[in-house]
Amino acid sequence: MTDETRATADIGLTGLAVMGSNLARNMARHGHTVAVHNRTTSKMTDFLDAHGSDGDFVGSESLSDFVASIKQPRAIIIMVKAGEATDAVIDELTGLLDDGDILVDAGNAHFADTVRRQQALEEHGIHFVGMGVSGGEEGALNGPSIMVGGSDHAYERLGPIVEDIAAQVDGTPCAAHVGPDGAGHFVKMVHNGIEYADMQLIAEAYDVLRSVAGQEPAELAEVFRRWNEGDLESFLIEIAADVLAHVDADTGRPFVDVVADSAEQKGTGRWTVQVALDLGVPVTGIAEAVFARSVSGHDAQREAAQKVFEEKLDAPEVGEDFVEDVRTALFAAKVVAYAQGFDMIVEGSNEHDWGIHAGEMATIWRGGCIIRAKFLDRIREAFDDEPDLTTLMTQEYFATALREGERGLRRVVTTATAAGVPVPGFAGALSYFDALRRDRLPAALIQGLRDNFGAHTYERVDRDGTFHTQWATDDRKEVEA
Amino acid sequence: MTDETRATADIGLTGLAVMGSNLARNMARHGHTVAVHNRTTSKMTDFLDAHGSDGDFVGSESLSDFVASIKQPRAIIIMVKAGEATDAVIDELTGLLDDGDILVDAGNAHFADTVRRQQALEEHGIHFVGMGVSGGEEGALNGPSIMVGGSDHAYERLGPIVEDIAAQVDGTPCAAHVGPDGAGHFVKMVHNGIEYADMQLIAEAYDVLRSVAGQEPAELAEVFRRWNEGDLESFLIEIAADVLAHVDADTGRPFVDVVADSAEQKGTGRWTVQVALDLGVPVTGIAEAVFARSVSGHDAQREAAQKVFEEKLDAPEVGEDFVEDVRTALFAAKVVAYAQGFDMIVEGSNEHDWGIHAGEMATIWRGGCIIRAKFLDRIREAFDDEPDLTTLMTQEYFATALREGERGLRRVVTTATAAGVPVPGFAGALSYFDALRRDRLPAALIQGLRDNFGAHTYERVDRDGTFHTQWATDDRKEVEA
Repeated sequence: MTDETRATADIGLTGLAVMGSNLARNMARHGHTVAVHNRTTSKMTDFLDAHGSDGDFVGSESLSDFVASIKQPRAIIIMVKAGEATDAVIDELTGLLDDGDILVDAGNAHFADTVRRQQALEEHGIHFVGMGVSGGEEGALNGPSIMVGGSDHAYERLGPIVEDIAAQVDGTPCAAHVGPDGAGHFVKMVHNGIEYADMQLIAEAYDVLRSVAGQEPAELAEVFRRWNEGDLESFLIEIAADVLAHVDADTGRPFVDVVADSAEQKGTGRWTVQVALDLGVPVTGIAEAVFARSVSGHDAQREAAQKVFEEKLDAPEVGEDFVEDVRTALFAAKVVAYAQGFDMIVEGSNEHDWGIHAGEMATIWRGGCIIRAKFLDRIREAFDDEPDLTTLMTQEYFATALREGERGLRRVVTTATAAGVPVPGFAGALSYFDALRRDRLPAALIQGLRDNFGAHTYERVDRDGTFHTQWATDDRKEVEA
Repeated sequence: MTDETRATADIGLTGLAVMGSNLARNMARHGHTVAVHNRTTSKMTDFLDAHGSDGDFVGSESLSDFVASIKQPRAIIIMVKAGEATDAVIDELTGLLDDGDILVDAGNAHFADTVRRQQALEEHGIHFVGMGVSGGEEGALNGPSIMVGGSDHAYERLGPIVEDIAAQVDGTPCAAHVGPDGAGHFVKMVHNGIEYADMQLIAEAYDVLRSVAGQEPAELAEVFRRWNEGDLESFLIEIAADVLAHVDADTGRPFVDVVADSAEQKGTGRWTVQVALDLGVPVTGIAEAVFARSVSGHDAQREAAQKVFEEKLDAPEVGEDFVEDVRTALFAAKVVAYAQGFDMIVEGSNEHDWGIHAGEMATIWRGGCIIRAKFLDRIREAFDDEPDLTTLMTQEYFATALREGERGLRRVVTTATAAGVPVPGFAGALSYFDALRRDRLPAALIQGLRDNFGAHTYERVDRDGTFHTQWATDDRKEVEA
């Protein structure tokens, strides 16, 4: 079908917007010959003009030339808009490919779409790969974290390249074959969900310290910088310090005060919660973060509520030690959020039979991605020690963090509650912690109510079986259901 | 197609399990002639043997005889298991029906399935109706709350019968034509979601009073009975008192102590949260309730956490006034949960162009259903006064409840937090309230972080437009994006 002699590229990439072009440059800089294509040809020629010196590129105007320029079995990365645009490119490419060729969707697709596409292309002998790429534009260029789904055959072909261009931590690449079909996009989705929870907790920590302890953004930037030298060391804490330290060029005001306080979202956080609900994993930290962003965008309701309810409450007096309380609280709440996220990875893997190694995900998130952090090493170690860990929360390192942070977490929640500062992330983490370790939960009353109004039955603490109470009769006996 | 002289029944019902047979009996008792059918014929004959004296029934063994026995345009209620069983019955019936006939799914279908079925049957000239029925078995027999979707033509035929058999409050039937296609099932789903939130808050109120104030179930039953005479008057508070008062016949222990504390769920709560996420409505109360049930069922994690973390904390001393604090907190948190649920109805209606009258939903929930309560009258009045209400929370009656409950809500959250009692429902409601009425939210910091790591841009408080800060450059200027 193709003229083999023209096939000189190690890999192809179509879709040369910022993410795509940065990925292509990253691969070329690592010595891989990259075939490049873009629907609008000028974008491709502009790209070659601007970045041709980064390495070896083969530019093609037509998709068929593009395909013909790649060594077999071909590996082609698609970096276009999720949804219909992706399906359109896949359709066009399918007719041009041969048995064993590999198509890689590197966008933020829903893993269920990836599973669907993989199944459809399998019939054509094409190996479809959903590949999660984290790290934003900068990561794509200089070393992202890469979560690869799809077949072993596909990873044999792709692995050397993606491991080459990924971020490296302690000599280990932040890239791995996560599992079959949708596993890569699934794990990328959970990564983003955890990112939502982490950012929400950071935002609440800032809010509490500013509103209760009265510290200004510049002072808080210093606090975050100090925090970044300890257990909390992470990219998000680092840039939080950066953002808080920044002064708006125009007004001279703290940057954080000139930004509109309505947080946007692109969908992966929402997907994470929706999928977690189907899996039966209570990802309260991610859910509260998604909802908090949503609340912030409900302008009309906020305006109405501000008019009707007075805001000012007397904030309780706090001393110097409050900063340390917030720090330990932040770390403890973060442990809860990550534990929930990893629960979800384990459950998702079980549900779809993906065989994901949870510890390996921690490994490849240590660099390149948005949630990169020192403590992911501890998560990796925890799963190395005990691959079937029931929950991260009870593993020694994290249990210690929770014990040390428990007092701070309670203090932050009670203080914020008294001061009228919303802390859905902190309060949710604490409630989850308290629920898990509690001997008896009031869920028993809920089961009683359900049996009363709907004869839904219940189990007992003292013997096996399913029971129903005859609520409508006079002597209300318990009977086996 | 059919012998008109055989058509004597006003309505048909297939699927004579408890819910179906109770609905059929309810219709017959109200003077409607009901054609009955069941796949397993003995169930139909057993039904007639047991309940034939309730009114006029026409039993048929075959579906074709069943269809032929109903007056045209026919109205047939399907009450079988949701999912494939429903699709199978629909398929079989479709071939037997005539243009203008009405098929009613009275099970708990997902509204998206109802929309799909409605569209498919429209091509055959059949009016498909998704009908939500709340009130359990007892309600089905003696007066449920009925939420009817589908066409006007369908409601003209069904309305007189469903309004007849529904619960009646102040002479108004608890049944209405909610809107087209999936509107009925959508509203029923939200009803169930609110039910989850309401039950979770009741369970937390019980837990806090028992764990902190040290009151026993029998005493708490009295507390709930008293509460049921005021603003909180509702079916769920009434049966909570009932369940708490009940003593296990076998062991002589409080019933609530012998029930396993792992709450189950059938899916409508989960659906509600998933759909709310798509609609962008932060239903934190429902989400926390769904998650709390989920946590209660994670036995292995609970066991592990109980071993590692000590449970006992010194509960703060509380006086007699604490009971009143919990009462006002419960009512305030309930207002928040219902406000979120009604937000969702409004958003869902806008999204699907259903034209739902939110106040009418409050009207038809006043009786028959699980969340029937005195204060639904207040919700009805609120929407009567102001059909485009921004949020229930700021309407006078509810704003007063929130102002009066705010102190109690804060006290319950701080007390429970100090005592180690999980209160995800109360804490979530308070955080939502505090977020809505807050002048500035830390979402501004989140927007700053997003712009820093992903160039996601932000808006400003002082001028229109979309902006980006050049974080990677030395002088970090703000530029229009």
